[in-house]
Amino acid sequence: MSDTLSPAELRRMIRAGEHIGTTSGTAPGFVQCNIVILPTSHAEDFMRFCQRNPKPCPLIAVGEPGDVALPALGDIDIRTDVPAYRVFRDGAPSEEVPDISALWRDDFVVFALGCSFSFEEALLDDGLEVRNLSQGRNVPMYRTNIDCIKSGAFSGKLVVSMRPFLAADAIRAIQICSRFPAVHGAPIHLGDPQLIGIADLSQPDYGDAIRIEQAELPVFWACGVTPQLALQAANLPLAITHSPGCMLVTDMRNSQLAVL
Amino acid sequence: MSDTLSPAELRRMIRAGEHIGTTSGTAPGFVQCNIVILPTSHAEDFMRFCQRNPKPCPLIAVGEPGDVALPALGDIDIRTDVPAYRVFRDGAPSEEVPDISALWRDDFVVFALGCSFSFEEALLDDGLEVRNLSQGRNVPMYRTNIDCIKSGAFSGKLVVSMRPFLAADAIRAIQICSRFPAVHGAPIHLGDPQLIGIADLSQPDYGDAIRIEQAELPVFWACGVTPQLALQAANLPLAITHSPGCMLVTDMRNSQLAVL
Repeated sequence: MSDTLSPAELRRMIRAGEHIGTTSGTAPGFVQCNIVILPTSHAEDFMRFCQRNPKPCPLIAVGEPGDVALPALGDIDIRTDVPAYRVFRDGAPSEEVPDISALWRDDFVVFALGCSFSFEEALLDDGLEVRNLSQGRNVPMYRTNIDCIKSGAFSGKLVVSMRPFLAADAIRAIQICSRFPAVHGAPIHLGDPQLIGIADLSQPDYGDAIRIEQAELPVFWACGVTPQLALQAANLPLAITHSPGCMLVTDMRNSQLAVL
Repeated sequence: MSDTLSPAELRRMIRAGEHIGTTSGTAPGFVQCNIVILPTSHAEDFMRFCQRNPKPCPLIAVGEPGDVALPALGDIDIRTDVPAYRVFRDGAPSEEVPDISALWRDDFVVFALGCSFSFEEALLDDGLEVRNLSQGRNVPMYRTNIDCIKSGAFSGKLVVSMRPFLAADAIRAIQICSRFPAVHGAPIHLGDPQLIGIADLSQPDYGDAIRIEQAELPVFWACGVTPQLALQAANLPLAITHSPGCMLVTDMRNSQLAVL
């Protein structure tokens, strides 16, 4: 039912605790965002990290210091409008909570980053099969041997998501995703996983393993889990992200992100 | 020296017999074309064949029946302005000649089709290595198991050219070539050659074998030899093409073909 709600209605339900869990498949056509919240002392360095690593960390909006709103993305109160949050203490994930009102600080800055849901929708709209969706699983994600470009305390390996395609469909997927740099853009690799430091596709570091058919190539996209690793490397006393799959649903349309 | 000549100057030299052989590397920045010349009795069917198979047969210009000019592409006399022609008799290649004035007929129609030189230049301009160029060889070409869509007497298998790239460069090459549908556009396949009926990359059907490094993927583009196979299938008493590598150099800029 929630797949026919407007983003604003959906956020109202989330705020009221009436929508719990993943936002996958909700508010089709609208941008959903990865969220990172950290103190203003580290905001500039993190923003520079995103600027230097735009494929895993495509910045869609940045709030003002202490501001819970993101007016560019809708009528949002970031303390309540995400279904579940992951709290990081001293660089380590500590708890998951449905509301961060009690944790909010006047020096917090909110970052909203593009998410793969947008390009998966574009692939589906073009008639391609997105295997993790057709299998009803989380997309498999892998830590690569590729270093992000560091900024201050933020550093770490690039994390990628993987979706298998026949070669002709992989070529089409590259064309489609190239239109959407704000949601990870074109893939960063395809073919042999070992070339980017992935030993075994059946053992993802995050998410679920999915089926790869005989003639299919694994295709790898930069992934929004990357900034969570950078956040851990930064070892901040307190930082907050969304919980995987539980995104901020915005009023921005996916089509508005298309560069062409 | 001829790489600094204008297209018009180069055509004048070709017309005078002062430039013989390949046009590769000449008149950089300008479109070079595959040429097919056949009687008006088969022109409509061949045009329909091109329309149905735009990746191997991207039509850039079509002359009027009996007309040796192609005004859209420059001040051209097609009987003399190509360095070498291949004459087909009863469907089979018979001789190569530097001038077709003696063969010209009032019912001939000229077709100019896009050529890979244009997209190779775009790849080089982006800093990618084009292996056949760096090795100083003809690009390797292979007959695939993919059928073209037939039109009248014209039919046959798709022929592809192959250039090897590291995966990230292959992705970039797909982006670059997607801007140029009039010169074969995006690749049609990459990875396992057997999936498109190629048994051995070291044994090309046309052109020269080239080196493929360890981590590289073979990337396959639809190729302008395809219409020559279709021409053979049509078994016409007389038809003429350019000789491979000896193209019509036009006044049109490669950048004018970019769709974006």
